[in-house]
Amino acid sequence: VRIVVLGAGRVGAAIVRDLAADAAFDVTAADRADHALRPLAAVARVHTVTGDLADPAVVARLAETHDLVVGALPSSIGYQALEAAIDVGRTVVDISFFDEDAFRLDAAARRRGVTAVVDAGISPGLSNLIFGREAADAEWIERFVCYVGGLPADRSGVFEYKAPFSPKDVIELYTRPARFRRAGVLETAPALSDRRPVEFPGVGALEAFLTDGLRTLLREADVPDMREMTLRYPGHVAKVEVLRDIGLFDTVPLDVDGARVAPRALAERLLFPLWSFEPEEADLTVFRVEVDARRAGRRARRTYDLVDRYDAASRTSSMARTTGYTCTALVRLVASGAWHEPGITPPEAIGRNPAAFDAVLRDLAARDVRVTTAERLLPGE
Amino acid sequence: VRIVVLGAGRVGAAIVRDLAADAAFDVTAADRADHALRPLAAVARVHTVTGDLADPAVVARLAETHDLVVGALPSSIGYQALEAAIDVGRTVVDISFFDEDAFRLDAAARRRGVTAVVDAGISPGLSNLIFGREAADAEWIERFVCYVGGLPADRSGVFEYKAPFSPKDVIELYTRPARFRRAGVLETAPALSDRRPVEFPGVGALEAFLTDGLRTLLREADVPDMREMTLRYPGHVAKVEVLRDIGLFDTVPLDVDGARVAPRALAERLLFPLWSFEPEEADLTVFRVEVDARRAGRRARRTYDLVDRYDAASRTSSMARTTGYTCTALVRLVASGAWHEPGITPPEAIGRNPAAFDAVLRDLAARDVRVTTAERLLPGE
Repeated sequence: VRIVVLGAGRVGAAIVRDLAADAAFDVTAADRADHALRPLAAVARVHTVTGDLADPAVVARLAETHDLVVGALPSSIGYQALEAAIDVGRTVVDISFFDEDAFRLDAAARRRGVTAVVDAGISPGLSNLIFGREAADAEWIERFVCYVGGLPADRSGVFEYKAPFSPKDVIELYTRPARFRRAGVLETAPALSDRRPVEFPGVGALEAFLTDGLRTLLREADVPDMREMTLRYPGHVAKVEVLRDIGLFDTVPLDVDGARVAPRALAERLLFPLWSFEPEEADLTVFRVEVDARRAGRRARRTYDLVDRYDAASRTSSMARTTGYTCTALVRLVASGAWHEPGITPPEAIGRNPAAFDAVLRDLAARDVRVTTAERLLPGE
Repeated sequence: VRIVVLGAGRVGAAIVRDLAADAAFDVTAADRADHALRPLAAVARVHTVTGDLADPAVVARLAETHDLVVGALPSSIGYQALEAAIDVGRTVVDISFFDEDAFRLDAAARRRGVTAVVDAGISPGLSNLIFGREAADAEWIERFVCYVGGLPADRSGVFEYKAPFSPKDVIELYTRPARFRRAGVLETAPALSDRRPVEFPGVGALEAFLTDGLRTLLREADVPDMREMTLRYPGHVAKVEVLRDIGLFDTVPLDVDGARVAPRALAERLLFPLWSFEPEEADLTVFRVEVDARRAGRRARRTYDLVDRYDAASRTSSMARTTGYTCTALVRLVASGAWHEPGITPPEAIGRNPAAFDAVLRDLAARDVRVTTAERLLPGE
């Protein structure tokens, strides 16, 4: 199977290496930046192509010469690349986390018989798979909460934080109002709100806050309570809140001593150096999904926990491992033909198939990304 | 006595009104801004003059036609105005809080027989008077701490803070390393350091941090421990610290999207609106001096406490009351001839004279600015 991976950033590179380890795959790594491709060129079964992936025509040409397309692009160009790949009739697995509604491409994908799996990372991604798995069994899901965070292992620095993906997207996360469901109503709350302490064994006390990460899960209108919460070390959010509250994340330019400056542009200039991981700096990923549901007449909370750490041997960040290996598990699923439904496919659709769900968790465990589960009864009604 | 008050800002205006209430004084209020002078023009015994007080020649001409000069100018032009007034041989009482060392003008002032009282506010000012009063009695002062803060009565807003004087000077206060004495050594610590809780009756819990406000008191080398601490509502300093730590108070311009911008210029643009009192918004002043000393063979801590509030009847801010009325008390002292030592005169010199000290506190009390004192024994050596 010939696979092209669009984007060779941290996560894209981990995807390329993981897929290329499988003799069944021939992998092309494509990126605009030579320096991103150079370390991959030496990997067996990997070809590299330099190209402007912001140009849909370039994406279409790459897609046409491959059987399957993996999108691991910046969020700003993810949607148009997905569209280009669907237009030439190629299977896609995407983790670009773009803003646009992928379902606008659903009709086109079905027309061409294309399977296009979107949001194939950890959250969105693994969280959606878990939702689907639970929905397959439960009589009724009453509450779904996903906690997720990528953190530096070393807690020094003003923010005790480094961004394991684009720091621009981090500021987006800190400013975009969060959509969630409460008591059956779709609500919106300001970013950084609803802070609460969360404890992770082996990690310690963290702080969770509401974020706008439910995405396709917002379509699950029969679950009355649903939210995504992002995790940081305690104290981080209060500091970010000061910056937001003084207007430092505003995008409207101001006159400052005769120059026109968007406050957010200066914020990026000041914050990105503070939020950048050093080369080979260790990160960790913390992830928990709680699903309160009635199953076979009993109310119970099922909890899925995951704590993953930087892999020093392969120099792979935990965020690249957890998002990238969920993505490659889904690639293997569609490449093998085990999943072949046409149309835009959020992971919750795949999770509803227990065999597909188990295959993804097995693949993750084989890469030492281990999800543990627990269940406890809730009081009956 | 003809008095010219240079600067008709909040504090300058309060000084003008207070002096003009005394039939012994003829008061000229001078300012660059017509709108600052307009409300004063109607006050009995007040003349107003519009002029550019940043021009020392303008200051000299004003000084020459008056007997006494009060400097209530922005810190950036305070020193040159003081120099201009001394050069034409006029008595001066100054609260401009300039950066320069006033003692550079000491020889000139002595030569002309001019009394020039500097730092005639609350801290510096009242704190220095108290130091002098205590030094007059004590065998040995072992520790001197001044706590001071100007706060909004209403605690809403991101910072629970408004600046009762120039917000530019507030950022200076938050960035300038603080000089203090510890165990007999003159030390320097970063701004915002050494935070500790302080309780004020009727106000509640506050937070103190080290600031560079000792000024002339740093010359008192035989006091081993001396510091000035600024007071804010708890949590304020942690927020300011984030801004400082990300570099938002830096003055070196950065390239931001093609424009050259000093981060501090944007900080001022964002913060000053948040830090500005509304018209007639109530403020309060909190002030405490602790003096540990041996007096008549006993070790004791004497505490001077002051909590002052906005005066709604006269629409006078508490900061204008406490700084302005200390200043006018000192003006009366020198205008009456009760103090006539030539040279640069910090208030601690005046405080060493018990009668002068009592006169200032009596004048403050007459304006309902009430200092209470308490004493408790310390363990003997």
